[in-house]
Amino acid sequence: MLTRRVLLSGIGAAGGSMAMFQAMASLGLNGESNYAGPPKLDGNVRGTSVVILGAGLAGLVGALELRKAGYKVDVLEYNSRPGGRCWTIRGGDTYTELGGETQHCSFAPGQYFDPGPWRIPYHHRAILDYCSKLGIALEPFNQVNYNAYLHSQKAFDGQPQRYRTINADYQGHIAELLAKATSQQKLSDEVSREDVEILLESLRTWGALDKDYRYQKNVLSGARRGWAVEPGGGLASTSLPGDPVGLSDVLKSRLWETLWLASFYEFQTPIFQPVGGMDMVAKGFARQVGNLVRYNAQVTQIDQNDQGVTISYKDKVQGGADKQIKADYCLCTLPLSTLSQIPVTAGGPLQAAISAVSYAAAIKIGLQFKRRFWETEEAIYGGITHTDLPISQIAYPSYGMGRPGPGVLLGGYTYGLDAYDLSSRSAPERVAEAVRQGARIHPQYPQEFDSGMTVPWHRMPTTLGCFAMWTDELRAQHYDNLCNLDGRLVLAGEHASHLPGWQEGAILSSLDAISRLHKKVVTA
Amino acid sequence: MLTRRVLLSGIGAAGGSMAMFQAMASLGLNGESNYAGPPKLDGNVRGTSVVILGAGLAGLVGALELRKAGYKVDVLEYNSRPGGRCWTIRGGDTYTELGGETQHCSFAPGQYFDPGPWRIPYHHRAILDYCSKLGIALEPFNQVNYNAYLHSQKAFDGQPQRYRTINADYQGHIAELLAKATSQQKLSDEVSREDVEILLESLRTWGALDKDYRYQKNVLSGARRGWAVEPGGGLASTSLPGDPVGLSDVLKSRLWETLWLASFYEFQTPIFQPVGGMDMVAKGFARQVGNLVRYNAQVTQIDQNDQGVTISYKDKVQGGADKQIKADYCLCTLPLSTLSQIPVTAGGPLQAAISAVSYAAAIKIGLQFKRRFWETEEAIYGGITHTDLPISQIAYPSYGMGRPGPGVLLGGYTYGLDAYDLSSRSAPERVAEAVRQGARIHPQYPQEFDSGMTVPWHRMPTTLGCFAMWTDELRAQHYDNLCNLDGRLVLAGEHASHLPGWQEGAILSSLDAISRLHKKVVTA
Repeated sequence: MLTRRVLLSGIGAAGGSMAMFQAMASLGLNGESNYAGPPKLDGNVRGTSVVILGAGLAGLVGALELRKAGYKVDVLEYNSRPGGRCWTIRGGDTYTELGGETQHCSFAPGQYFDPGPWRIPYHHRAILDYCSKLGIALEPFNQVNYNAYLHSQKAFDGQPQRYRTINADYQGHIAELLAKATSQQKLSDEVSREDVEILLESLRTWGALDKDYRYQKNVLSGARRGWAVEPGGGLASTSLPGDPVGLSDVLKSRLWETLWLASFYEFQTPIFQPVGGMDMVAKGFARQVGNLVRYNAQVTQIDQNDQGVTISYKDKVQGGADKQIKADYCLCTLPLSTLSQIPVTAGGPLQAAISAVSYAAAIKIGLQFKRRFWETEEAIYGGITHTDLPISQIAYPSYGMGRPGPGVLLGGYTYGLDAYDLSSRSAPERVAEAVRQGARIHPQYPQEFDSGMTVPWHRMPTTLGCFAMWTDELRAQHYDNLCNLDGRLVLAGEHASHLPGWQEGAILSSLDAISRLHKKVVTA
Repeated sequence: MLTRRVLLSGIGAAGGSMAMFQAMASLGLNGESNYAGPPKLDGNVRGTSVVILGAGLAGLVGALELRKAGYKVDVLEYNSRPGGRCWTIRGGDTYTELGGETQHCSFAPGQYFDPGPWRIPYHHRAILDYCSKLGIALEPFNQVNYNAYLHSQKAFDGQPQRYRTINADYQGHIAELLAKATSQQKLSDEVSREDVEILLESLRTWGALDKDYRYQKNVLSGARRGWAVEPGGGLASTSLPGDPVGLSDVLKSRLWETLWLASFYEFQTPIFQPVGGMDMVAKGFARQVGNLVRYNAQVTQIDQNDQGVTISYKDKVQGGADKQIKADYCLCTLPLSTLSQIPVTAGGPLQAAISAVSYAAAIKIGLQFKRRFWETEEAIYGGITHTDLPISQIAYPSYGMGRPGPGVLLGGYTYGLDAYDLSSRSAPERVAEAVRQGARIHPQYPQEFDSGMTVPWHRMPTTLGCFAMWTDELRAQHYDNLCNLDGRLVLAGEHASHLPGWQEGAILSSLDAISRLHKKVVTA
């Protein structure tokens, strides 16, 4: 699903950077899970049955833990695969979006593209614990790449700049400025005489300043921003530093706008991806509880009374009249965007909550190239190039690095108006546009392009958007009502968590929901 | 071998941070390789033979390229394995240091420890190219871990602090200070009125400042430094920020001293390690040219005249009188520390160069623990904890993350006086000391410790130190003489490069040396 980064940068573009931070606060997008192991669902459940709607991570983890506690569990899933937004696209895959356009993937064997979640922060303890328990191998995801680019159409004649040069020059210049203010005693109210000495020393170390506290062209700045002439072996050249970009040019370029992402809690190193694609997580759960899932089952109605719940669903393969499944309780993990379009027997507060929250538009574009030219020619291994073009970013694969042959990169990941604009075109035209835009950063694009896939989340029938867009006001009004048990029905998913848009939120939400459901069952 | 980081931090500890930077400049430790593919050694070499001394990376790449060019190649190697300092220790391995103490490794299957080089920067193009050509899989090495610790015995009552909190607080405080100086127009000579606006905006974004340009306890700082109360799912808690550390405490703690390493060119993300251990690189070369290597051959004399070279060596397995091997030329990759102890027929300038450069003392300690408690209990996956204890750092493995069972971490990596002090003890005592010190950061150490291995490079018979310690003065006087062909002899290795201590330096040095040797041969 859409990352917070893209979302926030988009808000920032519209409203300036304070808008960005306010949004971040409002959306509650910050956090380490408070997970302390799977819930202990002790007690006699006396054959109680639960039907789970949706086999995304919330549904799958619910199925796993409820069955373990002794419940009779059935899961209904719209797609023909487990995972929901936890999804990986590979050669041979096919999917159809709203409107009927079907895309067929022709990526080479071993190549893949994660259209939904694609990374797992180190502090998302619940999903990491399940990965460990389910034997899902993880590998580092390269988030920050100092050799990737920062690009603006309006700065440096549209030439992309290496992250390392902008980062070093921004850091060096602000260190020099602060050293100047400090040593001229312009901050004597703020910093004690004793601390001034240490502050200056720290700025010199941290900002690569010379003995006069200047950030200049020398071996110190070179050792941060890289070299104009690279060092060699034997009688080949030694290194020569290049010219730092001046303070004013760095500031006016606005390429500093994305530097903060490196220290953002959810993007800090280390950050992970499953080996082989994000759907390895879904497959790991499905190895345990896949036998409980009825695939191709489109839920059409959720009914409950004092005796139990009745779920109506369409069998998308066999067709025919809607079928029913009955159970004592229902754990519903459908996104609110689709749930709000289904008749649900529930109280007013839950009904209102289901309808209150909107979902963002977002599109991800995966592009296969014949060669990994970004590695062989530009020494970019994983990481992300940021651009003010509508594609917003180019993310290089953190797998298969150094191997010959083709590679698949994320050629665009954008949301909001740009996402609507891109997705208003046919799939081949979206891909062609991503190639056109990306060619302004990588001239090799047109020559090396092979094929592409696009996933506009707002046009995917199961989600109709990427994730729940909470605001502080909406949360105050509806969040508790959304999460509370309503008779025999309880909701779960990233939308019912304080970690919206993250798989961790989906898992924590489900564990909390089933704990409360279980408490009701055993104390009934 | 010893990393520059450790070296530099040691120099810094002795002489303050300017000493650190001056050393960095002097040692020429900064660089991207100027590699543009293997050299084209065209022309008829008419059966010319080359004997190569040392099967480290310089020797191996020399053997590979010279044989490809048609030379008759023989390699003599002291050890019973290829790679030299490119070495990985696993369960079952044994080695003996000077003085005769032998260590036997009892690590579990799949666990390893790289006592020499352990990472490959993205800009080391030559070694990356050979890894690609030789089919050596790479994976990311976690250099910076925001959840690892910064530790000082003198700060925070000796309690380790998470990197993310110190990094966020340092960044936040200096952004606030500079915003204050700027908005009070105390830097009007330095920053134009137009740029002031952008600078302030950038500081707010970058430093997590609030609308009044303050760095405070709120969701902005929480989203960098992490949370006091973590966000949950369903009706569990939302997140609450913790208290930032005050400016004065951050400064006095001196924990800012290692923050700059994240943006150091040679430690920037991405940085790599071979899957399975660094010696996969050596083994990759050996698959190609291992048949040319005579192992267990200790070179005792290097002789040359107008007709050719004669190398005397001891067969360490068969024993007996020294053997001789003759060739037209010699590529000598022995470290200067050992080469300077062998009779060499060479001109005065080369003799002087060989004797001029000293090697640093360094020790690395690998510790196996029964469980990966740093992952399961502390959410530390790879990366490095820095401490002012003699062990200097604890580096967590970047492989096998999330797996149950034992793990091997780097429990100490230090040089200079601390290295001499540690290595003056028996191997078991060194390990015990590393466990004692590490327990001040990880209380689980004594309980979970299983076994350890130590490699003091200054006590390893092949190297007598970790890498060549060039200074500007020594380079000016001796470097060209060291690299120039002397009759039929040419030297190569990290010591004959502008990238000392890096495998890239060894490879580039060798490629440059054989290019010049080849030119002499084909134009002779």
